[in-house]
Amino acid sequence: MMRIAILIFDGLTALDAIGPYEVLSRIPGAEVRFVAKEAGPKRTDTGFLGLEADVALADLAEPEVLVVPGGKGNRPLMDDSEVLDWLRAAHESSTWTTSVCTGALVLAASGILAGKRATTHWAYMDRLMELGAEPVGERVVEDGKILTAAGVSSGIDMALTLAARLAGERVAQAIQLGIEYDPDPPFDTGAPHKAPQELVDLIRSSESEARKTAQ
Amino acid sequence: MMRIAILIFDGLTALDAIGPYEVLSRIPGAEVRFVAKEAGPKRTDTGFLGLEADVALADLAEPEVLVVPGGKGNRPLMDDSEVLDWLRAAHESSTWTTSVCTGALVLAASGILAGKRATTHWAYMDRLMELGAEPVGERVVEDGKILTAAGVSSGIDMALTLAARLAGERVAQAIQLGIEYDPDPPFDTGAPHKAPQELVDLIRSSESEARKTAQ
Repeated sequence: MMRIAILIFDGLTALDAIGPYEVLSRIPGAEVRFVAKEAGPKRTDTGFLGLEADVALADLAEPEVLVVPGGKGNRPLMDDSEVLDWLRAAHESSTWTTSVCTGALVLAASGILAGKRATTHWAYMDRLMELGAEPVGERVVEDGKILTAAGVSSGIDMALTLAARLAGERVAQAIQLGIEYDPDPPFDTGAPHKAPQELVDLIRSSESEARKTAQ
Repeated sequence: MMRIAILIFDGLTALDAIGPYEVLSRIPGAEVRFVAKEAGPKRTDTGFLGLEADVALADLAEPEVLVVPGGKGNRPLMDDSEVLDWLRAAHESSTWTTSVCTGALVLAASGILAGKRATTHWAYMDRLMELGAEPVGERVVEDGKILTAAGVSSGIDMALTLAARLAGERVAQAIQLGIEYDPDPPFDTGAPHKAPQELVDLIRSSESEARKTAQ
């Protein structure tokens, strides 16, 4: 049995959590638990969906794999000592500690990313540096047992990389085929260096509004 | 307000629903509702997660956009007259009727895909034909107001295509940038013509086991 914990909270970005879940849950022998400060439904950042946390932090110790998704609701976690202590303890014994999108900011706030190469959503790279990590502009960044992924959808790529480490390339490739992950986006605007500057500015300003509200 | 309904049920594949949700919920003015036969938490196909259906079928009429995800738990829906009647009524007034993965089988069972070009997960193309649709081996297939997507992760590509139709290319491109959808899978095994035959056979046989259990 491979114990995988995904930390959720009100205001999470659903795909940050569900991308890795969909890949990692298909590894033979995997057991995925959705964990939160308190068990119960957590609403996504849009408010349109509740995801159930089946277990509370206090009742889940020593996961082998830890996944920390992002979303504007995670800012309060960055100075929540119960959450930060739990993350540090989980990281102490984990085989892999991972994040998606702004989940990296919470890992950084706990000190886990101090001096580590890491990534996050492209609009938050400066914040990641302020928190003591060494930001790297790649989609999936590995430093020791820490794997961080860029924005939202990148958690799928991170989890396939991780599945290969955990269970071998053949298993990871079978999972990729099973979820038919042969991406074919209708546009090529998924990264800031590929998108029109106008759209980059638009996202930056809406993220910066979200920061103000959260801080 | 643009009313979007995503049909969920016990045994769904989470990413089938969450890929489109993450894209469509970001369209300005979108209101996404997760709907099920009965409101309440629905467990995913792995059993590891509950997603909340906030509203029952009987309480949601005339969505503008309908999304039907797949997952082995959807087979009972294929002869559930309440579900099939609701789908036919919703399709009657929808602007767009869509499916992801084996969600197409449920649409087909309702008669909505009769004689229509459509797609589904690659391992179920024969079943889609048996149900009266004209299977097309593309990632996203459009026939009139019906958009069907291939397996699991293809719902993201379908939803970006749909976002462009609903709100224009600029909005769709901004959403793609916001979710940093610049995919970079570690392997190139996401489609049956790209994967080793051994893996194709493995997935086919496990899906065919799932069919036997479900039928």
